[in-house]
Amino acid sequence: MTQHAVLYYAPGAASMVVHWLMLELDMPHELRLVDTAAGAQRSPEYLKLNPNGVVPTLVLDGVPRFEAAALAMTLADRDPQHRFAPAHDDPLRADYHQWMFHLANAVQPLLRQWWYPHEPAGEANADNVRASVAPRLAAAWERLDTRIAEHGPYLLGDTVSAADLYLAMLMRWTRSMPRPATDWPHLNAFAQRMRARPAFARLYEAEGLTEWTNAPATATA
Amino acid sequence: MTQHAVLYYAPGAASMVVHWLMLELDMPHELRLVDTAAGAQRSPEYLKLNPNGVVPTLVLDGVPRFEAAALAMTLADRDPQHRFAPAHDDPLRADYHQWMFHLANAVQPLLRQWWYPHEPAGEANADNVRASVAPRLAAAWERLDTRIAEHGPYLLGDTVSAADLYLAMLMRWTRSMPRPATDWPHLNAFAQRMRARPAFARLYEAEGLTEWTNAPATATA
Ligand SMILES: N[C@@H](CCC(=O)N[C@@H](CS)C(=O)NCC(=O)O)C(=O)O
Ligand SMILES: N[C@@H](CCC(=O)N[C@@H](CS)C(=O)NCC(=O)O)C(=O)O
Repeated sequence: MTQHAVLYYAPGAASMVVHWLMLELDMPHELRLVDTAAGAQRSPEYLKLNPNGVVPTLVLDGVPRFEAAALAMTLADRDPQHRFAPAHDDPLRADYHQWMFHLANAVQPLLRQWWYPHEPAGEANADNVRASVAPRLAAAWERLDTRIAEHGPYLLGDTVSAADLYLAMLMRWTRSMPRPATDWPHLNAFAQRMRARPAFARLYEAEGLTEWTNAPATATA
Repeated sequence: MTQHAVLYYAPGAASMVVHWLMLELDMPHELRLVDTAAGAQRSPEYLKLNPNGVVPTLVLDGVPRFEAAALAMTLADRDPQHRFAPAHDDPLRADYHQWMFHLANAVQPLLRQWWYPHEPAGEANADNVRASVAPRLAAAWERLDTRIAEHGPYLLGDTVSAADLYLAMLMRWTRSMPRPATDWPHLNAFAQRMRARPAFARLYEAEGLTEWTNAPATATA
């Protein structure tokens, strides 16, 4: 099929990993902005595409699909030449599955609690939720920092994969937290490497993002 | 390598999907019970295998690996003959990714909140957490029931996959909730089909499980 993939996105949201990967893969695509602040993700039209009422949705070969991590995995597998996923007979494939699901099951849900703190226990407990999430998220970054320290510079070692784009996106979501993920030194070095990628600049340009960049070298007197 | 896989498990826990799949695949394995009630998952020895302090861990080719969904995906892919995962060039592969990650990212974390209600907002808010989780989980079952109704009898349609074992495990975790997943009619029919599998009986035997079976036909007078 020659029709372009269509990504329903919001700037910096979970759609970002899919968008970023499409740019890395030089994959033709269209963007459709979902005004999440206005609740457009819960409109009847959008719910027909994605009954979960969240971004992203990616229309691929005419079929609307959801789950950011799943979309990233599917796109990476469909383009083996760009090597954003280990091949199926590569021993690293098991590692890749592990880190994709670790981020999806153990890390992203904690960030959801931080950003939607009314969800777990009601509006009155938002502060309690944030107080509970912070140390659990810190423990998650600590473990990931150790992983990168011992087996880096990327999650799978020497070569970048879709799991790294995913990790970088989740780290970006902590930028205004009391303890952002970049407080951990190996994660900070990882963030620098990921932000230095040309596709990252194109992503920022396309989504109109500004925060969480590699600080430009400041001229010294 | 000829060494057996070793599964660190607790009866009925997230390890169950991995154990069940190994039985479906007739894959040789050893089981090691982790006494989660006694906190054995936080012992220094166990944390060396799995720094997250949860079950399952699967030692595969000598390497300890974690994340139940990732393990299921890896094992299914390594045994294409048993067809518990669509092949990589099968159009259903994208669906498979979608449902695996939907369960991992959108469903299992809600069940974690239900079963560990002190985690999101502290011990004092456990009841609030359960009150908040219930309707969100109901909405998730509603959507999955619709999926099975429209595209069933399995998540991917006509053939069973590892995603179905995963869904059945998560459904089982709701058996004592005010509204168990089997309240939804298509999910209930799905559960009956999954529980009728011979490997399910072997799983129950091996883990010593009793609850959540297909009720035996009662003799009528
Ligand atoms: N499981 C989904 C979750 C996506 C998600 O949480 N998206 C957020 C933005 S980062 C969203 O759409 N929020 C709006 C809402 O929940 O109403 C995925 O990973 O794709
Ligand atoms: N992300 C992990 C989560 C596993 C998990 O939550 N396991 C539970 C049992 S179902 C556990 O080990 N609980 C003990 C604890 O958290 O201390 C996976 O899916 O493998």
